[in-house]
Amino acid sequence: MDKNAPIGVFDSGVGGLTVAREIMRQIPNERIMYFGDTARLPYGSKSKDNIIKYSRQIIRFLQTENVKAIVVACNTASALALDEMQQEFDLPIIGVVKPGAKVAAETTKNKRIGLIGTDSNIRSGVYTKYIKSLRPDVCVFEKACPLFVPLVEEGWLHDSITEQVAQRYLSELKEKQIDTLIMGCTHYPLIRSTLGKIMGDNVNLVNPAYETAIELKSLLNRDNLANRCVIDSPSSMYRFYVSDAEEKFKEFANSILPFDITMTEQINIEQY
Amino acid sequence: MDKNAPIGVFDSGVGGLTVAREIMRQIPNERIMYFGDTARLPYGSKSKDNIIKYSRQIIRFLQTENVKAIVVACNTASALALDEMQQEFDLPIIGVVKPGAKVAAETTKNKRIGLIGTDSNIRSGVYTKYIKSLRPDVCVFEKACPLFVPLVEEGWLHDSITEQVAQRYLSELKEKQIDTLIMGCTHYPLIRSTLGKIMGDNVNLVNPAYETAIELKSLLNRDNLANRCVIDSPSSMYRFYVSDAEEKFKEFANSILPFDITMTEQINIEQY
Repeated sequence: MDKNAPIGVFDSGVGGLTVAREIMRQIPNERIMYFGDTARLPYGSKSKDNIIKYSRQIIRFLQTENVKAIVVACNTASALALDEMQQEFDLPIIGVVKPGAKVAAETTKNKRIGLIGTDSNIRSGVYTKYIKSLRPDVCVFEKACPLFVPLVEEGWLHDSITEQVAQRYLSELKEKQIDTLIMGCTHYPLIRSTLGKIMGDNVNLVNPAYETAIELKSLLNRDNLANRCVIDSPSSMYRFYVSDAEEKFKEFANSILPFDITMTEQINIEQY
Repeated sequence: MDKNAPIGVFDSGVGGLTVAREIMRQIPNERIMYFGDTARLPYGSKSKDNIIKYSRQIIRFLQTENVKAIVVACNTASALALDEMQQEFDLPIIGVVKPGAKVAAETTKNKRIGLIGTDSNIRSGVYTKYIKSLRPDVCVFEKACPLFVPLVEEGWLHDSITEQVAQRYLSELKEKQIDTLIMGCTHYPLIRSTLGKIMGDNVNLVNPAYETAIELKSLLNRDNLANRCVIDSPSSMYRFYVSDAEEKFKEFANSILPFDITMTEQINIEQY
Protein backbone atom coordinates (compact mmCIF):
# COMPACT_ATOMS: atom_id res chain seq x y z
CA MET A 1 0.00 0.00 0.00
CA ASP A 2 1.28 3.44 -0.96
CA LYS A 3 1.79 5.58 2.16
CA ASN A 4 1.42 8.66 0.02
CA ALA A 5 -2.10 7.60 -1.04
CA PRO A 6 -5.06 9.61 0.23
CA ILE A 7 -7.54 8.73 2.97
CA GLY A 8 -11.03 8.28 1.53
CA VAL A 9 -13.66 10.11 3.57
CA PHE A 10 -17.35 10.07 2.71
CA ASP A 11 -20.68 11.31 3.91
CA SER A 12 -24.15 11.89 2.52
CA GLY A 13 -23.27 15.54 2.07
CA VAL A 14 -21.47 18.27 3.94
CA GLY A 15 -21.73 16.89 7.49
CA GLY A 16 -18.67 14.67 7.10
CA LEU A 17 -16.59 17.80 6.57
CA THR A 18 -16.53 18.15 10.37
CA VAL A 19 -14.76 14.77 10.39
CA ALA A 20 -12.43 15.74 7.54
CA ARG A 21 -11.66 18.94 9.46
CA GLU A 22 -10.62 16.94 12.53
CA ILE A 23 -8.40 14.69 10.39
CA MET A 24 -6.80 17.79 8.82
CA ARG A 25 -6.14 19.18 12.32
CA GLN A 26 -4.83 16.04 13.92
CA ILE A 27 -3.00 14.42 10.98
CA PRO A 28 -2.11 17.36 8.75
CA ASN A 29 0.29 15.42 6.55
CA GLU A 30 -2.34 13.02 5.21
CA ARG A 31 -4.02 13.59 1.86
CA ILE A 32 -7.82 13.37 1.82
CA MET A 33 -10.22 12.39 -0.97
CA TYR A 34 -13.67 13.50 0.18
CA PHE A 35 -16.95 12.39 -1.34
CA GLY A 36 -20.32 13.97 -0.46
CA ASP A 37 -23.34 12.08 -1.83
CA THR A 38 -25.36 15.25 -2.37
CA ALA A 39 -27.59 13.64 -5.02
CA ARG A 40 -28.99 11.16 -2.50
CA LEU A 41 -28.80 13.02 0.80
CA PRO A 42 -30.04 12.86 3.46
CA TYR A 43 -29.21 9.31 4.52
CA GLY A 44 -30.97 9.78 7.87
CA SER A 45 -34.38 8.77 6.52
CA LYS A 46 -33.28 5.95 4.19
CA SER A 47 -33.35 2.15 4.71
CA LYS A 48 -30.43 -0.12 5.58
CA ASP A 49 -30.46 -1.76 2.14
CA ASN A 50 -30.11 1.53 0.33
CA ILE A 51 -27.45 2.82 2.72
CA ILE A 52 -25.40 -0.33 2.08
CA LYS A 53 -25.80 0.05 -1.68
CA TYR A 54 -24.80 3.72 -1.58
CA SER A 55 -21.77 3.02 0.64
CA ARG A 56 -20.58 0.23 -1.67
CA GLN A 57 -20.80 2.50 -4.72
CA ILE A 58 -18.89 5.25 -2.95
CA ILE A 59 -16.10 2.96 -1.76
CA ARG A 60 -15.72 1.61 -5.30
CA PHE A 61 -15.40 5.18 -6.52
CA LEU A 62 -12.85 6.09 -3.81
CA GLN A 63 -10.82 3.03 -4.80
CA THR A 64 -10.36 4.47 -8.29
CA GLU A 65 -7.79 6.77 -6.66
CA ASN A 66 -6.23 3.97 -4.61
CA VAL A 67 -7.13 5.29 -1.18
CA LYS A 68 -5.18 3.52 1.57
CA ALA A 69 -7.96 3.65 4.19
CA ILE A 70 -11.56 4.77 4.41
CA VAL A 71 -13.41 6.81 7.01
CA VAL A 72 -17.19 6.51 6.90
CA ALA A 73 -17.78 10.08 8.09
CA CYS A 74 -21.53 9.64 8.37
CA ASN A 75 -23.28 8.33 11.45
CA THR A 76 -26.11 6.71 9.50
CA ALA A 77 -23.77 4.84 7.14
CA SER A 78 -21.47 3.91 10.05
CA ALA A 79 -24.46 2.55 11.95
CA LEU A 80 -26.09 0.68 9.06
CA ALA A 81 -23.35 -0.30 6.60
CA LEU A 82 -19.93 -0.45 8.31
CA ASP A 83 -19.90 -4.17 9.13
CA GLU A 84 -20.90 -5.14 5.59
CA MET A 85 -18.31 -2.82 4.05
CA GLN A 86 -15.54 -4.17 6.28
CA GLN A 87 -16.40 -7.69 5.11
CA GLU A 88 -16.66 -6.80 1.43
CA PHE A 89 -13.57 -4.67 0.97
CA ASP A 90 -9.95 -5.49 1.61
CA LEU A 91 -8.71 -2.22 3.12
CA PRO A 92 -8.99 -0.60 6.55
CA ILE A 93 -12.41 1.02 7.03
CA ILE A 94 -13.47 2.87 10.16
CA GLY A 95 -16.70 4.61 11.06
CA VAL A 96 -17.63 7.36 13.49
CA VAL A 97 -19.97 5.36 15.73
CA LYS A 98 -17.52 3.10 17.57
CA PRO A 99 -14.95 5.78 18.46
CA GLY A 100 -17.73 8.05 19.78
CA ALA A 101 -19.49 5.25 21.67
CA LYS A 102 -16.20 4.03 23.17
CA VAL A 103 -15.16 7.35 24.66
CA ALA A 104 -18.66 7.94 26.02
CA ALA A 105 -18.70 4.52 27.70
CA GLU A 106 -15.25 5.11 29.15
CA THR A 107 -15.82 8.61 30.48
CA THR A 108 -19.35 8.64 31.94
CA LYS A 109 -19.22 8.79 35.72
CA ASN A 110 -22.91 8.35 36.60
CA LYS A 111 -23.39 5.76 33.82
CA ARG A 112 -26.12 7.80 32.15
CA ILE A 113 -25.40 8.69 28.52
CA GLY A 114 -27.58 10.69 26.14
CA LEU A 115 -27.52 10.13 22.39
CA ILE A 116 -28.89 12.50 19.73
CA GLY A 117 -28.94 11.80 15.99
CA THR A 118 -31.04 11.35 12.86
CA ASP A 119 -34.11 9.11 12.73
CA SER A 120 -32.35 6.16 11.03
CA ASN A 121 -29.35 6.31 13.29
CA ILE A 122 -31.46 6.29 16.45
CA ARG A 123 -33.77 3.58 15.08
CA SER A 124 -30.77 1.38 14.22
CA GLY A 125 -29.84 1.19 17.92
CA VAL A 126 -26.21 0.67 16.93
CA TYR A 127 -24.68 3.23 19.29
CA THR A 128 -26.56 1.84 22.26
CA LYS A 129 -25.73 -1.76 21.37
CA TYR A 130 -22.03 -0.96 21.14
CA ILE A 131 -21.98 1.04 24.38
CA LYS A 132 -23.76 -1.82 26.20
CA SER A 133 -21.28 -4.35 24.80
CA LEU A 134 -18.44 -2.32 26.31
CA ARG A 135 -20.17 -1.53 29.59
CA PRO A 136 -23.47 -3.34 30.21
CA ASP A 137 -24.38 -1.32 33.31
CA VAL A 138 -24.66 1.99 31.43
CA CYS A 139 -28.07 3.49 30.60
CA VAL A 140 -28.40 5.15 27.19
CA PHE A 141 -31.21 7.64 26.53
CA GLU A 142 -31.88 8.30 22.84
CA LYS A 143 -33.54 11.20 21.05
CA ALA A 144 -33.92 11.72 17.30
CA CYS A 145 -33.50 15.39 16.32
CA PRO A 146 -34.44 15.60 12.61
CA LEU A 147 -34.57 19.41 12.44
CA PHE A 148 -30.95 20.00 13.48
CA VAL A 149 -29.52 19.13 10.04
CA PRO A 150 -31.74 21.52 8.05
CA LEU A 151 -31.16 24.25 10.67
CA VAL A 152 -27.38 23.84 10.33
CA GLU A 153 -27.65 23.77 6.53
CA GLU A 154 -29.69 26.97 6.66
CA GLY A 155 -26.72 28.48 8.52
CA TRP A 156 -28.74 29.29 11.66
CA LEU A 157 -25.92 28.16 13.94
CA HIS A 158 -26.20 30.80 16.68
CA ASP A 159 -29.86 31.53 16.55
CA SER A 160 -32.86 31.85 18.85
CA ILE A 161 -34.97 29.46 16.74
CA THR A 162 -32.25 26.80 16.76
CA GLU A 163 -32.02 27.26 20.52
CA GLN A 164 -35.77 26.73 20.98
CA VAL A 165 -35.73 23.62 18.80
CA ALA A 166 -32.79 22.30 20.83
CA GLN A 167 -34.59 23.13 24.09
CA ARG A 168 -37.55 21.07 22.96
CA TYR A 169 -35.51 18.12 21.72
CA LEU A 170 -33.17 18.03 24.72
CA SER A 171 -35.67 18.58 27.53
CA GLU A 172 -36.34 14.87 28.07
CA LEU A 173 -32.61 14.10 28.10
CA LYS A 174 -32.04 16.80 30.70
CA GLU A 175 -34.63 15.15 32.95
CA LYS A 176 -32.69 11.89 32.73
CA GLN A 177 -29.70 13.45 34.53
CA ILE A 178 -27.18 12.33 31.91
CA ASP A 179 -23.55 13.38 32.39
CA THR A 180 -22.50 12.63 28.78
CA LEU A 181 -24.14 13.52 25.47
CA ILE A 182 -23.00 11.97 22.19
CA MET A 183 -23.47 14.27 19.19
CA GLY A 184 -24.45 11.37 16.95
CA CYS A 185 -24.61 13.27 13.67
CA THR A 186 -21.71 14.99 11.92
CA HIS A 187 -23.65 18.24 11.59
CA TYR A 188 -24.17 18.66 15.31
CA PRO A 189 -20.67 19.86 16.32
CA LEU A 190 -21.53 23.01 14.36
CA ILE A 191 -24.22 23.85 16.95
CA ARG A 192 -22.09 22.64 19.85
CA SER A 193 -22.27 25.95 21.71
CA THR A 194 -26.09 25.90 21.66
CA LEU A 195 -26.20 22.27 22.80
CA GLY A 196 -23.64 22.97 25.53
CA LYS A 197 -25.53 26.00 26.80
CA ILE A 198 -28.76 24.00 27.14
CA MET A 199 -27.23 20.90 28.69
CA GLY A 200 -25.04 22.88 31.12
CA ASP A 201 -21.44 22.57 32.26
CA ASN A 202 -21.95 19.23 33.97
CA VAL A 203 -22.69 17.39 30.75
CA ASN A 204 -19.72 16.33 28.64
CA LEU A 205 -20.41 16.65 24.89
CA VAL A 206 -18.77 13.84 22.91
CA ASN A 207 -17.79 14.70 19.34
CA PRO A 208 -17.30 11.41 17.44
CA ALA A 209 -15.41 13.29 14.70
CA TYR A 210 -12.64 14.12 17.14
CA GLU A 211 -12.42 10.54 18.43
CA THR A 212 -12.48 9.14 14.90
CA ALA A 213 -9.46 11.21 13.87
CA ILE A 214 -7.58 9.85 16.91
CA GLU A 215 -8.49 6.29 15.93
CA LEU A 216 -7.46 6.87 12.32
CA LYS A 217 -4.10 8.20 13.42
CA SER A 218 -3.36 5.18 15.58
CA LEU A 219 -4.57 2.79 12.86
CA LEU A 220 -2.23 4.37 10.30
CA ASN A 221 0.70 4.12 12.70
CA ARG A 222 -0.13 0.53 13.65
CA ASP A 223 -0.38 -0.64 10.03
CA ASN A 224 2.68 1.36 8.98
CA LEU A 225 0.57 3.45 6.63
CA ALA A 226 1.23 6.94 7.99
CA ASN A 227 2.33 9.47 5.41
CA ARG A 228 5.67 11.21 5.93
CA CYS A 229 5.22 13.73 3.14
CA VAL A 230 5.82 17.43 3.52
CA ILE A 231 2.57 19.33 4.05
CA ASP A 232 1.57 21.09 0.87
CA SER A 233 -1.23 23.53 0.02
CA PRO A 234 -4.84 22.43 0.66
CA SER A 235 -5.50 22.34 -3.09
CA SER A 236 -2.94 19.58 -3.57
CA MET A 237 -3.62 17.74 -0.28
CA TYR A 238 -7.42 17.65 -0.40
CA ARG A 239 -9.82 16.77 -3.20
CA PHE A 240 -13.60 17.07 -3.05
CA TYR A 241 -16.20 15.18 -5.05
CA VAL A 242 -19.99 15.37 -4.96
CA SER A 243 -22.82 13.60 -6.77
CA ASP A 244 -24.89 16.79 -7.23
CA ALA A 245 -25.14 20.52 -6.58
CA GLU A 246 -21.47 21.55 -6.37
CA GLU A 247 -22.12 25.19 -5.62
CA LYS A 248 -24.09 24.67 -2.43
CA PHE A 249 -21.52 22.15 -1.20
CA LYS A 250 -18.65 24.53 -1.89
CA GLU A 251 -20.37 27.40 -0.12
CA PHE A 252 -21.02 25.31 2.98
CA ALA A 253 -17.52 23.78 2.93
CA ASN A 254 -15.93 27.21 2.76
CA SER A 255 -17.90 28.29 5.81
CA ILE A 256 -16.55 25.48 7.99
CA LEU A 257 -13.09 24.60 6.65
CA PRO A 258 -10.05 26.74 7.49
CA PHE A 259 -9.33 27.35 3.80
CA ASP A 260 -11.37 27.92 0.65
CA ILE A 261 -12.18 24.99 -1.60
CA THR A 262 -11.41 26.06 -5.14
CA MET A 263 -12.52 22.97 -7.00
CA THR A 264 -15.23 20.36 -6.54
CA GLU A 265 -15.88 17.69 -9.12
CA GLN A 266 -19.32 16.24 -9.75
CA ILE A 267 -19.46 12.53 -10.58
CA ASN A 268 -22.21 10.07 -11.46
CA ILE A 269 -22.05 7.80 -8.40
CA GLU A 270 -24.65 5.33 -9.71
CA GLN A 271 -22.10 4.12 -12.27
CA TYR A 272 -19.94 2.54 -9.56
CA MET B 1 -56.75 4.60 -23.85
CA ASP B 2 -58.66 2.79 -21.08
CA LYS B 3 -60.92 5.22 -19.20
CA ASN B 4 -60.83 2.93 -16.23
CA ALA B 5 -57.02 3.21 -16.01
CA PRO B 6 -55.51 5.08 -13.06
CA ILE B 7 -54.02 8.58 -12.97
CA GLY B 8 -50.29 8.41 -12.19
CA VAL B 9 -49.29 10.93 -9.52
CA PHE B 10 -45.73 11.33 -8.30
CA ASP B 11 -43.64 13.37 -5.93
CA SER B 12 -40.27 13.12 -4.20
CA GLY B 13 -42.07 11.87 -1.10
CA VAL B 14 -45.17 12.67 0.87
CA GLY B 15 -45.77 16.27 -0.26
CA GLY B 16 -47.60 15.22 -3.42
CA LEU B 17 -50.24 13.61 -1.23
CA THR B 18 -51.76 17.08 -0.84
CA VAL B 19 -52.24 17.01 -4.62
CA ALA B 20 -53.59 13.44 -4.58
CA ARG B 21 -55.96 14.53 -1.82
CA GLU B 22 -57.33 17.34 -4.00
CA ILE B 23 -57.82 14.94 -6.92
CA MET B 24 -59.65 12.52 -4.61
CA ARG B 25 -61.90 15.36 -3.47
CA GLN B 26 -62.62 16.90 -6.85
CA ILE B 27 -62.66 13.78 -9.05
CA PRO B 28 -63.60 10.98 -6.65
CA ASN B 29 -64.30 8.41 -9.35
CA GLU B 30 -60.76 8.37 -10.70
CA ARG B 31 -58.28 5.70 -9.66
CA ILE B 32 -54.85 6.93 -8.53
CA MET B 33 -51.43 5.24 -8.66
CA TYR B 34 -49.18 7.29 -6.40
CA PHE B 35 -45.39 7.08 -6.32
CA GLY B 36 -43.25 8.78 -3.65
CA ASP B 37 -39.51 8.76 -4.38
CA THR B 38 -38.56 8.47 -0.74
CA ALA B 39 -35.14 6.95 -1.52
CA ARG B 40 -34.01 10.10 -3.30
CA LEU B 41 -35.95 12.87 -1.57
CA PRO B 42 -35.74 15.78 -1.21
CA TYR B 43 -35.70 17.00 -4.82
CA GLY B 44 -35.49 20.63 -3.68
CA SER B 45 -31.70 20.63 -3.45
CA LYS B 46 -30.94 18.49 -6.53
CA SER B 47 -29.84 19.52 -10.05
CA LYS B 48 -31.99 19.72 -13.17
CA ASP B 49 -30.20 16.75 -14.78
CA ASN B 50 -30.94 14.48 -11.85
CA ILE B 51 -34.55 15.65 -11.53
CA ILE B 52 -35.10 14.84 -15.22
CA LYS B 53 -33.54 11.40 -14.78
CA TYR B 54 -35.64 10.65 -11.71
CA SER B 55 -38.86 11.85 -13.37
CA ARG B 56 -38.18 9.71 -16.44
CA GLN B 57 -37.64 6.59 -14.31
CA ILE B 58 -40.83 7.23 -12.37
CA ILE B 59 -42.97 7.77 -15.47
CA ARG B 60 -41.60 4.54 -16.94
CA PHE B 61 -42.59 2.78 -13.72
CA LEU B 62 -46.09 4.34 -13.72
CA GLN B 63 -46.53 3.19 -17.32
CA THR B 64 -46.17 -0.42 -16.20
CA GLU B 65 -49.73 -0.06 -14.92
CA ASN B 66 -50.96 1.75 -18.04
CA VAL B 67 -51.81 5.06 -16.40
CA LYS B 68 -53.93 7.24 -18.69
CA ALA B 69 -52.46 10.57 -17.54
CA ILE B 70 -49.72 11.79 -15.23
CA VAL B 71 -49.66 14.53 -12.63
CA VAL B 72 -46.21 15.71 -11.58
CA ALA B 73 -47.27 16.50 -8.02
CA CYS B 74 -43.94 18.06 -7.11
CA ASN B 75 -43.07 21.69 -7.67
CA THR B 76 -39.37 21.00 -8.22
CA ALA B 77 -40.00 18.31 -10.84
CA SER B 78 -42.75 20.41 -12.47
CA ALA B 79 -40.36 23.35 -12.65
CA LEU B 80 -37.30 21.44 -13.88
CA ALA B 81 -38.53 18.41 -15.82
CA LEU B 82 -42.08 18.89 -17.12
CA ASP B 83 -41.22 20.19 -20.60
CA GLU B 84 -38.77 17.34 -21.22
CA MET B 85 -41.24 14.73 -19.99
CA GLN B 86 -44.03 16.10 -22.18
CA GLN B 87 -41.72 15.80 -25.20
CA GLU B 88 -40.48 12.31 -24.34
CA PHE B 89 -43.72 10.57 -23.44
CA ASP B 90 -46.87 10.11 -25.46
CA LEU B 91 -49.55 10.67 -22.81
CA PRO B 92 -51.03 13.72 -21.12
CA ILE B 93 -48.70 15.03 -18.40
CA ILE B 94 -49.49 18.05 -16.24
CA GLY B 95 -47.52 19.69 -13.45
CA VAL B 96 -48.45 21.88 -10.50
CA VAL B 97 -46.54 25.02 -11.52
CA LYS B 98 -48.61 26.26 -14.45
CA PRO B 99 -52.06 25.88 -12.82
CA GLY B 100 -50.80 27.70 -9.70
CA ALA B 101 -49.04 30.43 -11.67
CA LYS B 102 -52.05 30.93 -13.93
CA VAL B 103 -54.56 31.53 -11.16
CA ALA B 104 -52.15 33.86 -9.35
CA ALA B 105 -51.61 35.92 -12.51
CA GLU B 106 -55.35 36.07 -13.14
CA THR B 107 -56.45 37.01 -9.64
CA THR B 108 -53.86 39.51 -8.36
CA LYS B 109 -55.34 42.99 -8.19
CA ASN B 110 -52.31 45.09 -7.32
CA LYS B 111 -50.07 43.01 -9.63
CA ARG B 112 -47.71 42.04 -6.78
CA ILE B 113 -47.37 38.28 -6.27
CA GLY B 114 -45.23 36.49 -3.67
CA LEU B 115 -43.79 33.01 -4.28
CA ILE B 116 -42.40 30.66 -1.64
CA GLY B 117 -40.80 27.29 -2.34
CA THR B 118 -37.70 25.10 -2.09
CA ASP B 119 -34.24 26.29 -3.12
CA SER B 120 -34.25 24.55 -6.53
CA ASN B 121 -37.72 25.66 -7.40
CA ILE B 122 -36.97 29.31 -6.62
CA ARG B 123 -33.60 29.16 -8.37
CA SER B 124 -35.24 27.70 -11.49
CA GLY B 125 -37.30 30.88 -11.94
CA VAL B 126 -39.99 28.85 -13.72
CA TYR B 127 -42.98 30.19 -11.80
CA THR B 128 -41.92 33.78 -12.40
CA LYS B 129 -41.19 33.18 -16.08
CA TYR B 130 -44.62 31.64 -16.61
CA ILE B 131 -46.45 34.39 -14.70
CA LYS B 132 -44.62 37.06 -16.71
CA SER B 133 -45.49 35.30 -19.98
CA LEU B 134 -49.17 35.51 -19.04
CA ARG B 135 -49.06 39.02 -17.65
CA PRO B 136 -45.81 40.92 -18.18
CA ASP B 137 -46.75 43.85 -15.92
CA VAL B 138 -46.89 41.71 -12.75
CA CYS B 139 -44.08 41.82 -10.17
CA VAL B 140 -43.12 38.51 -8.56
CA PHE B 141 -41.22 38.47 -5.25
CA GLU B 142 -39.53 35.13 -4.47
CA LYS B 143 -38.36 33.59 -1.21
CA ALA B 144 -36.87 30.12 -0.65
CA CYS B 145 -38.07 28.57 2.63
CA PRO B 146 -36.00 25.37 3.08
CA LEU B 147 -37.05 24.73 6.70
CA PHE B 148 -40.78 24.44 6.00
CA VAL B 149 -40.54 20.88 4.62
CA PRO B 150 -38.67 19.41 7.61
CA LEU B 151 -40.98 21.27 10.00
CA VAL B 152 -44.04 19.80 8.29
CA GLU B 153 -42.44 16.34 8.24
CA GLU B 154 -41.73 16.68 11.97
CA GLY B 155 -45.47 17.26 12.37
CA TRP B 156 -45.08 20.73 13.89
CA LEU B 157 -48.00 22.11 11.90
CA HIS B 158 -49.58 24.39 14.50
CA ASP B 159 -46.54 25.37 16.47
CA SER B 160 -44.81 28.45 17.86
CA ILE B 161 -41.46 27.48 16.33
CA THR B 162 -42.99 26.99 12.87
CA GLU B 163 -44.66 30.36 13.29
CA GLN B 164 -41.36 32.08 14.13
CA VAL B 165 -39.62 30.46 11.16
CA ALA B 166 -42.50 31.60 8.93
CA GLN B 167 -42.34 35.12 10.39
CA ARG B 168 -38.67 35.29 9.48
CA TYR B 169 -39.08 33.89 5.97
CA LEU B 170 -42.16 35.95 5.13
CA SER B 171 -41.16 39.32 6.58
CA GLU B 172 -39.56 40.56 3.34
CA LEU B 173 -42.60 39.49 1.31
CA LYS B 174 -44.90 41.36 3.69
CA GLU B 175 -42.89 44.53 3.09
CA LYS B 176 -43.47 44.15 -0.65
CA GLN B 177 -47.25 44.65 -0.22
CA ILE B 178 -48.16 41.53 -2.18
CA ASP B 179 -51.85 40.64 -2.45
CA THR B 180 -51.29 37.03 -3.59
CA LEU B 181 -48.93 34.34 -2.23
CA ILE B 182 -48.27 31.11 -4.15
CA MET B 183 -47.54 28.15 -1.87
CA GLY B 184 -44.95 26.76 -4.30
CA CYS B 185 -44.25 23.49 -2.51
CA THR B 186 -46.73 20.68 -1.96
CA HIS B 187 -45.95 20.55 1.76
CA TYR B 188 -46.96 24.14 2.39
CA PRO B 189 -50.77 23.77 2.32
CA LEU B 190 -50.32 21.77 5.54
CA ILE B 191 -49.16 24.97 7.31
CA ARG B 192 -51.65 27.14 5.48
CA SER B 193 -53.23 28.48 8.68
CA THR B 194 -49.84 29.69 9.98
CA LEU B 195 -48.99 31.30 6.63
CA GLY B 196 -52.43 32.92 6.44
CA LYS B 197 -52.17 34.31 9.96
CA ILE B 198 -48.81 35.94 9.22
CA MET B 199 -49.73 37.33 5.80
CA GLY B 200 -53.13 38.62 6.94
CA ASP B 201 -56.59 38.55 5.42
CA ASN B 202 -55.70 40.80 2.50
CA VAL B 203 -53.31 38.26 0.98
CA ASN B 204 -54.85 35.47 -1.09
CA LEU B 205 -53.01 32.15 -0.62
CA VAL B 206 -52.84 30.15 -3.85
CA ASN B 207 -52.71 26.36 -3.46
CA PRO B 208 -51.44 24.90 -6.76
CA ALA B 209 -52.73 21.45 -5.70
CA TYR B 210 -56.29 22.72 -5.86
CA GLU B 211 -55.80 24.37 -9.26
CA THR B 212 -54.04 21.28 -10.61
CA ALA B 213 -56.99 19.03 -9.75
CA ILE B 214 -59.29 21.45 -11.62
CA GLU B 215 -56.99 21.35 -14.65
CA LEU B 216 -56.79 17.55 -14.53
CA LYS B 217 -60.57 17.29 -14.45
CA SER B 218 -61.02 19.51 -17.51
CA LEU B 219 -58.22 17.68 -19.35
CA LEU B 220 -59.89 14.30 -18.74
CA ASN B 221 -63.21 15.64 -19.96
CA ARG B 222 -61.67 17.31 -23.01
CA ASP B 223 -59.80 14.17 -24.07
CA ASN B 224 -62.75 11.92 -23.32
CA LEU B 225 -60.74 10.12 -20.66
CA ALA B 226 -62.93 10.67 -17.59
CA ASN B 227 -63.78 7.53 -15.66
CA ARG B 228 -67.45 6.67 -15.21
CA CYS B 229 -66.86 3.86 -12.73
CA VAL B 230 -68.72 3.50 -9.47
CA ILE B 231 -66.67 4.77 -6.53
CA ASP B 232 -65.21 1.89 -4.61
CA SER B 233 -63.24 1.65 -1.38
CA PRO B 234 -59.94 3.58 -1.13
CA SER B 235 -57.99 0.32 -1.06
CA SER B 236 -59.18 -0.58 -4.55
CA MET B 237 -59.18 2.98 -5.96
CA TYR B 238 -55.79 4.12 -4.72
CA ARG B 239 -52.40 2.41 -4.77
CA PHE B 240 -49.23 3.73 -3.16
CA TYR B 241 -45.63 2.97 -4.06
CA VAL B 242 -42.39 4.28 -2.56
CA SER B 243 -38.69 3.77 -3.24
CA ASP B 244 -37.75 3.56 0.46
CA ALA B 245 -38.96 3.72 4.06
CA GLU B 246 -42.58 2.57 3.73
CA GLU B 247 -43.44 2.97 7.39
CA LYS B 248 -42.67 6.66 7.65
CA PHE B 249 -44.56 7.32 4.42
CA LYS B 250 -47.59 5.41 5.63
CA GLU B 251 -47.63 7.23 8.96
CA PHE B 252 -47.50 10.63 7.29
CA ALA B 253 -50.05 9.66 4.63
CA ASN B 254 -52.48 8.50 7.28
CA SER B 255 -52.19 11.83 9.04
CA ILE B 256 -53.24 13.83 5.97
CA LEU B 257 -55.53 11.56 3.92
CA PRO B 258 -59.20 11.08 4.86
CA PHE B 259 -58.70 7.28 5.12
CA ASP B 260 -55.98 4.93 6.31
CA ILE B 261 -53.52 3.50 3.79
CA THR B 262 -53.28 -0.21 4.44
CA MET B 263 -50.65 -1.15 1.90
CA THR B 264 -47.60 0.53 0.43
CA GLU B 265 -45.27 -1.29 -1.90
CA GLN B 266 -41.55 -0.55 -2.06
CA ILE B 267 -39.96 -0.76 -5.50
CA ASN B 268 -36.44 -0.33 -6.88
CA ILE B 269 -36.93 2.79 -8.99
CA GLU B 270 -33.39 2.77 -10.42
CA GLN B 271 -34.34 -0.28 -12.50
CA TYR B 272 -36.66 1.80 -14.68
